[in-house]
Amino acid sequence: MCQSVEMKAIEWLDDRLRLIDQTTLPSGLASIECRAPEDVAEAIVNMRVRGAPAIGIAAGYGMALAAARSGAKDVPDLMRDLNAAAQMLRRTRPTAVQLFWATDEALKAAREAADVIDATRRVLDAAHRLRERERRANLALARHGAELIPIVANILTHCNTGELATAGYGTALGIVRTAHAQGKRIHVWVDETRPALQGARLAAWELLKEGIPHTVIVDSAAASLMRRGKVDVVVVGADRIAANGDTANKVGTYGLAVIARAHGVPFYVAAPTSTIDPRLPNGDAIPIEERSPDEIRRIGNMRIAPDGSPALNLAFDVTPHDLISAIVTELGVIRSPYDHRLTSMVRDALQAV
Amino acid sequence: MCQSVEMKAIEWLDDRLRLIDQTTLPSGLASIECRAPEDVAEAIVNMRVRGAPAIGIAAGYGMALAAARSGAKDVPDLMRDLNAAAQMLRRTRPTAVQLFWATDEALKAAREAADVIDATRRVLDAAHRLRERERRANLALARHGAELIPIVANILTHCNTGELATAGYGTALGIVRTAHAQGKRIHVWVDETRPALQGARLAAWELLKEGIPHTVIVDSAAASLMRRGKVDVVVVGADRIAANGDTANKVGTYGLAVIARAHGVPFYVAAPTSTIDPRLPNGDAIPIEERSPDEIRRIGNMRIAPDGSPALNLAFDVTPHDLISAIVTELGVIRSPYDHRLTSMVRDALQAV
Repeated sequence: MCQSVEMKAIEWLDDRLRLIDQTTLPSGLASIECRAPEDVAEAIVNMRVRGAPAIGIAAGYGMALAAARSGAKDVPDLMRDLNAAAQMLRRTRPTAVQLFWATDEALKAAREAADVIDATRRVLDAAHRLRERERRANLALARHGAELIPIVANILTHCNTGELATAGYGTALGIVRTAHAQGKRIHVWVDETRPALQGARLAAWELLKEGIPHTVIVDSAAASLMRRGKVDVVVVGADRIAANGDTANKVGTYGLAVIARAHGVPFYVAAPTSTIDPRLPNGDAIPIEERSPDEIRRIGNMRIAPDGSPALNLAFDVTPHDLISAIVTELGVIRSPYDHRLTSMVRDALQAV
Repeated sequence: MCQSVEMKAIEWLDDRLRLIDQTTLPSGLASIECRAPEDVAEAIVNMRVRGAPAIGIAAGYGMALAAARSGAKDVPDLMRDLNAAAQMLRRTRPTAVQLFWATDEALKAAREAADVIDATRRVLDAAHRLRERERRANLALARHGAELIPIVANILTHCNTGELATAGYGTALGIVRTAHAQGKRIHVWVDETRPALQGARLAAWELLKEGIPHTVIVDSAAASLMRRGKVDVVVVGADRIAANGDTANKVGTYGLAVIARAHGVPFYVAAPTSTIDPRLPNGDAIPIEERSPDEIRRIGNMRIAPDGSPALNLAFDVTPHDLISAIVTELGVIRSPYDHRLTSMVRDALQAV
């Protein structure tokens, strides 16, 4: 347990990966150290590290750990170990596309190596590069997105999209940070975000740390706040964006988009281009993770629903593109129709790497 | 602690009131005994007894306890004690109109009495009558409402509106019980209903006890279930209905009504006519209770948001009448426009008492 608030969400320590354990917040700030790809997979499955960009970065370092621990004598042997690690890491959570990107990048880097030592170095470099690229993308998208925030604004957000979720500056919460730093008078409504409470536990903790005015609400209170004129803009992150702009994000996002539309409130999605999956024509093809019903039936040790009652725990939902006022990436703000523009944006982003 | 499932939600035991303590469910079935109106007020404030009809009945018996414990020598003296008890009980929770009805009925009953003994008997009789009237109203409205339920139906409900909430058969959940008893193939989506979790803790417990198929979901999952075509009808209760049909109910109800409309799903409100407040022209005048932020920041002993983060805990919201497909009372099903028809319905109901 380390109480320093300077602890980084994800940090590479020469031969191991240190992660803030997001499950213990806000009661305590603790970290875990991963020395093998299995440790990283466990941390992702149990949401010790979460948030699509952060998951991708952790998986990248998971590949670096796999390379470092491999006893392989040549590159083909190493590739077998790396492929096994990639398979394991990809099985952890199906929705966030960064997980697939990050492991692919690692495999590509190793495949081009001259020998095992070179490959191991290249896989670690790929992880560092991914992390740095995501950090820069956060800063750029936050700058673009802050232009969408009025000078005085009540901003509603869902889930956590800050430093913890991105190992960087944040996506939706990065926009909030930048708008606040620009001197805009903002106040954030933080959806608590059941069942895992990433809003109440993590977004509120980050906003408190940054001194940004905010108020936690239950998810179902958003609609009546909008009706009272207390919400000027909604900004959320994304776990995967299809080619037409349909967006998978934390369960509850779709309902928010519907009620925002009904009240004439702009609804923005903020995500790096690494979130865009141009292979999927629309959101119907995005796999939606179903997690344990006990994440709904229990909070900590407390039983909040009868054990005999079934519970359905879909971790994400899909918001159709026509409910999204704009998508903010590191390359700028784009408005519907999104077709082709998203795909070409990904192409541009890849060329810029 | 009593483990009998036959325990009644609210029971008068000669000289005291026994209530199921709804805060301990579903982990344990416990009861409390109220021997003074202060005990009843405490139980209402701390939601040991909750649900608009149940609160009204408990308050009626609270008045009976006040009369029984009064040392008054004559009716004017007794009226002073009863007025004080009524004031205290009315301050407990501002939104449910039954609290005001029930205390008014008790005062009216006492005022007409010949002496203190007669008055004490009349106040208790008024409480018994109120309870019996609500029970009969539940059964009648459940019969009317069940006609709105398709033969095969996924029904979504919010909060708890069953036996616990009504000390009777239930309102929205009474409709569910009747439809199930009629052999309709129903399945209930139970919104967990943050922050106090009346859906997960209480509605699921009642449905499990009755053997009615159901699944608990987080409140924010309702929209994506509707989008997938998994919700055929929404049925909720009410805490107060204004003359034009605007309805105050548990926070989250309004958002549900908005998303139901967006998906073409019928949205029904089920409540006895005692819930209708014809003095209020519309929902803007309904007082909305704001409860402690710690009901959001903590669950049991567990901290789920930083103590330094403000939280806004509005217990109810108002759904405008144009989003309500029909209102079901013991006198039948009425559809919009509700004006005048609700007011005359209340008049008819009062004459029928």
